[in-house]
Amino acid sequence: SFQRECYSVDVKKSPTTTKSKFQLDDVIEAQQFERDTLNDIFKVAREMESIEKNSSCSKILDGFLMATLFYEPSTRTRLSFESAMKRLGGEVLTTENAREFSSAAKGETLEDTIRTVESYSDIIVLRHFESGAARRTATTANIPVINAGDGPGQHPTQALLDVYTIRREIGSLDGLKLALVGDLANGRTVRSLAYLIAKYRDIKIYFVSPDVVKMKDDIKNYLTSMGVQWEESTNLLEAASNCDVIYQTRIQRERFGERIDLYEAARGKYIVDKNVLNVMPKHAVVMHPLPRLDEITLDVDSDPRAAYFRQAKNGLYIRMALLKLLLLGW
Amino acid sequence: SFQRECYSVDVKKSPTTTKSKFQLDDVIEAQQFERDTLNDIFKVAREMESIEKNSSCSKILDGFLMATLFYEPSTRTRLSFESAMKRLGGEVLTTENAREFSSAAKGETLEDTIRTVESYSDIIVLRHFESGAARRTATTANIPVINAGDGPGQHPTQALLDVYTIRREIGSLDGLKLALVGDLANGRTVRSLAYLIAKYRDIKIYFVSPDVVKMKDDIKNYLTSMGVQWEESTNLLEAASNCDVIYQTRIQRERFGERIDLYEAARGKYIVDKNVLNVMPKHAVVMHPLPRLDEITLDVDSDPRAAYFRQAKNGLYIRMALLKLLLLGW
Amino acid sequence: SFQRECYSVDVKKSPTTTKSKFQLDDVIEAQQFERDTLNDIFKVAREMESIEKNSSCSKILDGFLMATLFYEPSTRTRLSFESAMKRLGGEVLTTENAREFSSAAKGETLEDTIRTVESYSDIIVLRHFESGAARRTATTANIPVINAGDGPGQHPTQALLDVYTIRREIGSLDGLKLALVGDLANGRTVRSLAYLIAKYRDIKIYFVSPDVVKMKDDIKNYLTSMGVQWEESTNLLEAASNCDVIYQTRIQRERFGERIDLYEAARGKYIVDKNVLNVMPKHAVVMHPLPRLDEITLDVDSDPRAAYFRQAKNGLYIRMALLKLLLLGW
Repeated sequence: SFQRECYSVDVKKSPTTTKSKFQLDDVIEAQQFERDTLNDIFKVAREMESIEKNSSCSKILDGFLMATLFYEPSTRTRLSFESAMKRLGGEVLTTENAREFSSAAKGETLEDTIRTVESYSDIIVLRHFESGAARRTATTANIPVINAGDGPGQHPTQALLDVYTIRREIGSLDGLKLALVGDLANGRTVRSLAYLIAKYRDIKIYFVSPDVVKMKDDIKNYLTSMGVQWEESTNLLEAASNCDVIYQTRIQRERFGERIDLYEAARGKYIVDKNVLNVMPKHAVVMHPLPRLDEITLDVDSDPRAAYFRQAKNGLYIRMALLKLLLLGW
Repeated sequence: SFQRECYSVDVKKSPTTTKSKFQLDDVIEAQQFERDTLNDIFKVAREMESIEKNSSCSKILDGFLMATLFYEPSTRTRLSFESAMKRLGGEVLTTENAREFSSAAKGETLEDTIRTVESYSDIIVLRHFESGAARRTATTANIPVINAGDGPGQHPTQALLDVYTIRREIGSLDGLKLALVGDLANGRTVRSLAYLIAKYRDIKIYFVSPDVVKMKDDIKNYLTSMGVQWEESTNLLEAASNCDVIYQTRIQRERFGERIDLYEAARGKYIVDKNVLNVMPKHAVVMHPLPRLDEITLDVDSDPRAAYFRQAKNGLYIRMALLKLLLLGW
Repeated sequence: SFQRECYSVDVKKSPTTTKSKFQLDDVIEAQQFERDTLNDIFKVAREMESIEKNSSCSKILDGFLMATLFYEPSTRTRLSFESAMKRLGGEVLTTENAREFSSAAKGETLEDTIRTVESYSDIIVLRHFESGAARRTATTANIPVINAGDGPGQHPTQALLDVYTIRREIGSLDGLKLALVGDLANGRTVRSLAYLIAKYRDIKIYFVSPDVVKMKDDIKNYLTSMGVQWEESTNLLEAASNCDVIYQTRIQRERFGERIDLYEAARGKYIVDKNVLNVMPKHAVVMHPLPRLDEITLDVDSDPRAAYFRQAKNGLYIRMALLKLLLLGW
């Protein structure tokens, strides 16, 4: 027969009894998740790994319609959400370039657009160029909203998949030592990760970045207030030899405007290459939110500690878990 | 279980026996629909409201493929059609920017494009920048075609949803008093609505618009020939106090070209606000084809007579009904 | 009932027993297919004609996800692949303008993009502006890859559908006489067709083209080495009176750059019109890869020998067959 075989997929309805009253209405910012909630989401994400392999047999979101409303293009994030929805049997309405194409160009408010889109769909995944747009959307809509990045603000599903990846790769989140490397001033990713990881015990963070893109004081003060140890370092090799996780990021040229000279100086200062692998502990991993340019050399890819493509795949499981939780509950 | 419950959806096959021989081949212009046909379509649209809530159980268009061939972007209209198709279990092929991307750029005729697209799909929804394009498409294609707006010409599904909304909100279409407000010269919507509403009895229409965008003579002459009473008014409050329906429209800046001064003068002349609500009858409604700028103030939204978001939702039901009728018949 | 009736679709699992060990991993270039493999693919394509008419009943790719990763837009090719996938019950992730939108704009390598996309999907259909991109993709990806055109390089599914069309229209491929007309220098299509048709016996090819866009020596030498007879001709009528297949192509203006004068001279030199039809044998056919400008006049369309729209439809069946073979095997 042409049909793939169906394995019975046993997705438990309530991963915990204590959390049975927990209600997940929207996913707006990384800070909204407490440690226990994160653990529960991660359990569902883990279950999703088996569902994905048997998607024709486990259409738990059959009949649900997700609107991916992207005011700025992000092919990677969009495809990840759409794959997650379709792997669960759901359907998708797509608009990749809402800013240019939609009635936004004629001056319609975001709130009016949302009121229309919510009448066509069951859940909205929003990508927007303005900080705070996701919260405004969630306030307006009577259906669940997931923030897929709003300007320099939040990108909470990226933060969740980062923490989930650390948990899957290292096995634990308490007692962790991380090096955050690269563009720490503009990198939404590393800022959100710092926020989330601070909820765990005995964390030590090394900030390794060129001077022009150093981590900002708000995060440093927050970490200090949460009892997280941190220090700035200019020595990537030393940090790498001490850490469980090297989280490398791209220096974002688009943030430097005309100052190409500053960009060129910053880029290439801290590269993860074979030399870094050589000093890293055996159990440690290299992570990267992607896209990667040359801040991780290609010869690193074949090392088992290169976790960045597994990290991308984990994004699928986290998004499947969130779609399931928002549309069906625990 | 994660499955949503299935309610049995009882969609009657033939809403009327008298109309059983009626054949709906294409949807090209508002004028093609007679009063009886409209009533029958509205009955099917009403049934669609219950289907939509149980879409996983009522995939009456399962296996059908709709091509949304948009030569100019219209995210709102496209998503409405695609939602309608997917709510009925059908599938969609999308092209949002056919003008720029497709072989049209290489000089292919619309007719050749249609001959190819019809071999990939079961129904074509066309949006085009040229008046008459929908009719040419229907002439070429051997599968049903729905006009989703062709240039300054027709946008018949908008006209149908407008009349359906009046019927749903007011309960009757005969004996109706409407105020058409705003850009009556360029507004495709109000022109089509005037055409359709003229098929009902004892209609009175007030045209309330700035001088530069007054209703054109062709519509006025048509209404007179159909026995519809109409008058031009410069007093929105007076019209509002007399009417069952205030149909507000946006002054379309894109029609004024360089004459920003004329646009600014026209815009803001007739605003639906709390003052208008105060004189409107209790049973009356405010409608708007959306997008809305500031021609309806935000504080109107919470009034139960603000029908414009319900109107958008009705567009979904009308399109579901048309897709069902064109692909499966009555 | 609203359900369309289900006819039992009997798709044989193994069209040939001798080929049961044949493995189709990727579709990268026309040359990869031997005569026997072509025959087997054509048998599956033929079966697909009956499946397409009953698609709600024959979802053999239910649960599979295809990513259409298009680095340059080609609406026609994209819709053909997406229709093929959906007709078989599969689902699609679409990106129509990957070059501009994706992280490629930020400098990500194709290989990195592929590693991410393969984690979201089960098969990749790639359109790219660079020759060789499809092979690089297949080397990187652990899932099947289909080349939907890579720059001036290959467009193997077009070549397959061309040969399939000749087989369907003429009944045989051996002993064939073809005239390849128009832009033979830049036309990827005619080059691939020449490669594939050389695998059959007693082939004679006439090259009919303006001087500036003559067939290049590599193909001529290849044909000679394969024992294929060919000659250049400046007389379309004479060639047409001798041939089973007139394969007309568009002179591609975009290849002439500033030399509009050369383009104008080349275009219009060899037109397939009523005069050509008059000398063509009764059993012969006119083919064209589309889009067509004025190199075939509109009055040819109604002649039964005009096969170009049937040819486009055959593209659907060939792509259905390839998707089935790559995802499910023989």
